[in-house]
Amino acid sequence: MNTIESWKTISSEYISKHHYFTARRDVCEANDKKIIDPYFVVEMSASVCGFALTENNEVLLVRQYRYPINEVLLEIPGGFIDHNEEPAKAIEREMLEETGYAFKEVVSVGKIAANPGVLNNYTYLYLLKGGVKIAHQQLDANEQIEVVLMPLEKVKEMLCNNQFKQALHVVCMYQALLHLKELEF
Amino acid sequence: MNTIESWKTISSEYISKHHYFTARRDVCEANDKKIIDPYFVVEMSASVCGFALTENNEVLLVRQYRYPINEVLLEIPGGFIDHNEEPAKAIEREMLEETGYAFKEVVSVGKIAANPGVLNNYTYLYLLKGGVKIAHQQLDANEQIEVVLMPLEKVKEMLCNNQFKQALHVVCMYQALLHLKELEF
Repeated sequence: MNTIESWKTISSEYISKHHYFTARRDVCEANDKKIIDPYFVVEMSASVCGFALTENNEVLLVRQYRYPINEVLLEIPGGFIDHNEEPAKAIEREMLEETGYAFKEVVSVGKIAANPGVLNNYTYLYLLKGGVKIAHQQLDANEQIEVVLMPLEKVKEMLCNNQFKQALHVVCMYQALLHLKELEF
Repeated sequence: MNTIESWKTISSEYISKHHYFTARRDVCEANDKKIIDPYFVVEMSASVCGFALTENNEVLLVRQYRYPINEVLLEIPGGFIDHNEEPAKAIEREMLEETGYAFKEVVSVGKIAANPGVLNNYTYLYLLKGGVKIAHQQLDANEQIEVVLMPLEKVKEMLCNNQFKQALHVVCMYQALLHLKELEF
């Protein structure tokens, strides 16, 4: 049973349509005819992230500055999916660009929404195995990313101690570790 | 060693300052003097969410419509922290408002950022135990929330199968289950 129904969009107006930031202000009608005015939505492209193991079973992490919270975070690689790109191809491309690694195996471990109360996108989660360095980093103009190789045991310890701060990435790590049977219910 | 440094904010302009949505367009300078123009930040208050067990060891979930992705999701209770409110008090208040339950024990299990590339807030994560229904739901005007009680085993199964879609909530569930030793490395 599900008594909760979708809202109808009555009107929609973009307040920003910049390449880096698209947001709109909608007016909606709920199923009880109640009007919700306004409801703001930030439109973002679907993205990917990946928990990546090298052929030596080390985890490929990236250190990256996040301006909105003014912190340097230790994260897993990832990024936005290009137009018409398959999510699994996108994670392979992002891994190559951000770290220079290619992988023997790419396994989907789910998809997740960062904050579906305001953002409209999903992030596709991957486990990548057997990574080998085949190229140099190729970063976008505004990217500054340090690659960090970390033993799997140390990553598990940091995860236990809540030391990773990016929710999308933490979910990917848990899902990948369940898949690897490094974590069990 | 950390060669990545914070950016300086050169200018900052609000593109929306509505009670429900605050966003700004900044111009920044990186440590190599490179100018980042623009960088958009959505300002959000800190929030809380909680993995809550009743005295019968059932998990307290909420079914809620999320307009940005047009889906009804099964989530854990949570919400924004009020001005000057302690996070632990906020989760107790949100639990009472959304479900009518009060708890014997409230344990902090970490904090996490939904998407620190665009959102500036953290969410504080809690495990709540020994819940008893003491009141009716008291919802805000735009809230429509169905309370769902689910056996712990069923929640673990859904988590394994990637059936929860809200990243902040999934992280809270994993952290709480680790704390409860229902999940082990």
